[in-house]
Amino acid sequence: MNNVPIISGKKWKDVQVVRFNQSFSISFHQQIEYMFEINENYLQLNESYLFSTIAKRIEKFSASHPEADIIRLGIGDVTLPLPPSVLQAMHNAVDEMGVKETFRGYGPEQGYAFLREKISEVDFRQRGIDISPGEIFVGDGSKSDTGNIGDILGEGNVVAITNPVYPVYLDTNIMRLGKSSQIVLLPCGEENGFLPEIPSHHLDVIYLCYPNNPTGTVMNREQLKQWVDYALENRSLILFDAAYEAFIRDNEIPRSIYEIEGAAACAIEFRSFSKNAGFTGLRCSYTVVPKVLTARSAEGSNISLNGLWNRRQSTKFNGTPYIVQKAAEAVYSPEGQQEVREMVSYYMRNAEMIREGLTEKGWTFFGGKDSPYIWLKCPGGMDSWTFFDRLLQECHIVGTPGVGFGSKGEGYFRLTAFNSHERTAEAVRRIKQWEY
Amino acid sequence: MNNVPIISGKKWKDVQVVRFNQSFSISFHQQIEYMFEINENYLQLNESYLFSTIAKRIEKFSASHPEADIIRLGIGDVTLPLPPSVLQAMHNAVDEMGVKETFRGYGPEQGYAFLREKISEVDFRQRGIDISPGEIFVGDGSKSDTGNIGDILGEGNVVAITNPVYPVYLDTNIMRLGKSSQIVLLPCGEENGFLPEIPSHHLDVIYLCYPNNPTGTVMNREQLKQWVDYALENRSLILFDAAYEAFIRDNEIPRSIYEIEGAAACAIEFRSFSKNAGFTGLRCSYTVVPKVLTARSAEGSNISLNGLWNRRQSTKFNGTPYIVQKAAEAVYSPEGQQEVREMVSYYMRNAEMIREGLTEKGWTFFGGKDSPYIWLKCPGGMDSWTFFDRLLQECHIVGTPGVGFGSKGEGYFRLTAFNSHERTAEAVRRIKQWEY
Repeated sequence: MNNVPIISGKKWKDVQVVRFNQSFSISFHQQIEYMFEINENYLQLNESYLFSTIAKRIEKFSASHPEADIIRLGIGDVTLPLPPSVLQAMHNAVDEMGVKETFRGYGPEQGYAFLREKISEVDFRQRGIDISPGEIFVGDGSKSDTGNIGDILGEGNVVAITNPVYPVYLDTNIMRLGKSSQIVLLPCGEENGFLPEIPSHHLDVIYLCYPNNPTGTVMNREQLKQWVDYALENRSLILFDAAYEAFIRDNEIPRSIYEIEGAAACAIEFRSFSKNAGFTGLRCSYTVVPKVLTARSAEGSNISLNGLWNRRQSTKFNGTPYIVQKAAEAVYSPEGQQEVREMVSYYMRNAEMIREGLTEKGWTFFGGKDSPYIWLKCPGGMDSWTFFDRLLQECHIVGTPGVGFGSKGEGYFRLTAFNSHERTAEAVRRIKQWEY
Repeated sequence: MNNVPIISGKKWKDVQVVRFNQSFSISFHQQIEYMFEINENYLQLNESYLFSTIAKRIEKFSASHPEADIIRLGIGDVTLPLPPSVLQAMHNAVDEMGVKETFRGYGPEQGYAFLREKISEVDFRQRGIDISPGEIFVGDGSKSDTGNIGDILGEGNVVAITNPVYPVYLDTNIMRLGKSSQIVLLPCGEENGFLPEIPSHHLDVIYLCYPNNPTGTVMNREQLKQWVDYALENRSLILFDAAYEAFIRDNEIPRSIYEIEGAAACAIEFRSFSKNAGFTGLRCSYTVVPKVLTARSAEGSNISLNGLWNRRQSTKFNGTPYIVQKAAEAVYSPEGQQEVREMVSYYMRNAEMIREGLTEKGWTFFGGKDSPYIWLKCPGGMDSWTFFDRLLQECHIVGTPGVGFGSKGEGYFRLTAFNSHERTAEAVRRIKQWEY
């Protein structure tokens, strides 16, 4: 029997030696005591992810009402097929994968240069923002990227998220830090226009998502500048989720946090191809980690977050599929840009229909102007889940209960603009006729 | 200014209040003190990932020797194009994505039922192993899956990996736990046939990879049974990486750990489509987490690891692309199975060529029989990196230095069977003629 060497030589667990072949001779109690441990933080999570809960309620309703024609304005999934230039790029890429000379195996974990260069050029440099290809990491979705970013952050941080919030920010932080950690909720309600106020406390890490999911609200340049200034002053890190930037129509609303001076020194930005180009089933995103963004290690060295994220991605990720990256590249062609603009316009016409319908109905709502999300106040003082159930049972419309995004979402409800014109119009018609 | 509520109410950081608008009035020293923290474990990692280091050395050599015809037998990347049935499935899937009626957006995070059912049937049930679709999680690669599995495990575990080892197991554990944690190395050398010995200590989590990367060795049924029995007795968790099972030719070698009685109660298995079906650039894998596999929480409840992994994947992953899952499904068709068998045979013919060449050369080596990897002992007592540099400079052949996989790999070198017959034959010819 060999002596097992230990890397650190420091913390060998003080347990009784259990020899193989003394098969099952140890007591049950001992077995429990020496069992491997799970990440107990998971036990502090809500039982299931919001959208799984909703899916189950729909399933149950459908099973007992198979005739019901349900309209889904709930989950933020797109419905238009992929645009022609994206399809053509994928067919070509599939052909390349079938020929020895053009077959592609492992690609760079950070993404292919052809895509990183296009992103840098079209999404940033053409808009006067200096983000280089080496600051862009292609990923398989913003859910993964915003979920995994915590890997490179320390456990001592005070982490701020808004309330209500996209549940992934909260859940992934509970998974990593537990509820007993320093997770801070920044309340967003009608009283502050659903925008978090600059706190008087020190915050280390701040998640911001604008245009916002779920409230559909946006931050103008001055409002975002206040957060950048706060972060620079406090040496905080802003995690800026710009997954919905394509829906911004008002030129006064920043599309990237890097439009704000100094943001490159304090912010990581997340972008997605899901909503603008319909990639929810294709899976492609990118994360911007500027090279000027540094932290200070415990021993006082400057540490590049670009380097840390690169190490994380190189070690725990093997790149987005080549064919998907070729699809994303096609989005940046002149035809692709035109097709994507048309898709966004299509969805924004839906948002307008919903806005018009709710206005006529006399309900209070927010968003839907520079965002595909409409955040409505449940009528008659209904709570979010009551409204969900009644809207499902009486109108056969699925939305998302606001309380699913946090306690400050109670009494609110999220509708999305991602269905078809026909279905959206039908949903609006049903809502208008609804006597609740 | 609102009071920021805290989830736990417990650990609010004791820092000076920094108010916005007192712009930059705090001292530099204070700024450092209150800066956000990074995951300092990353600073304990080697500077760069093994294969990035190799890539840089090749780049440097190529720059100064542009005429050199370099043969790559290093990284485990495949070279044959994707088989026809896989290509056809992808073209069909791309077409589906272009039509409203068949477009697919977000899929189930766990993978589509059509693929999970095929995997369950062909890879397990047809071989007499009872693994259900609900125990299978489709992922985007074994690097991600084996890297992310640590998310659901506790920080108090004694984690064992072999030495030498696939670097991802070690690096991801250092990222999560730091070097000062209980990471144990199980030495594998010529003295034990490169198979770890059953330890006399208690281990909580044990990574095993067979057929092994990098040594190309395999575990027979009796050897694997000893580990399963050890894990059952010690209530340990085995993380079994079977990425190379398709290369097993000897029927006495288990292709899945679940061929061993009791393994479902103590093991998670990782599988990949990368090497058998050439998916290194497509990205598809799966993880098996049996429903009978439970852990005990600190407060004494039984916790399903299937449930924990499901929660992890639902929260931090949005599924493998639909077109890639359709490609994987095609691998299970009769034509796909035949094509995949031919690809594996092709690569194994390369392994045979290398084995024959090295035998003739009189070098000592291991593996290459039930594995695409040949693990050779560097001749003349050379260390791994010296051999790497000389083989590159004098033969223009790239391999992987054994020491890159751990200290026990020093003096060894890994060659892979993934190049073409022609290039492999040429590499063997160069090695035979080499006077070192």
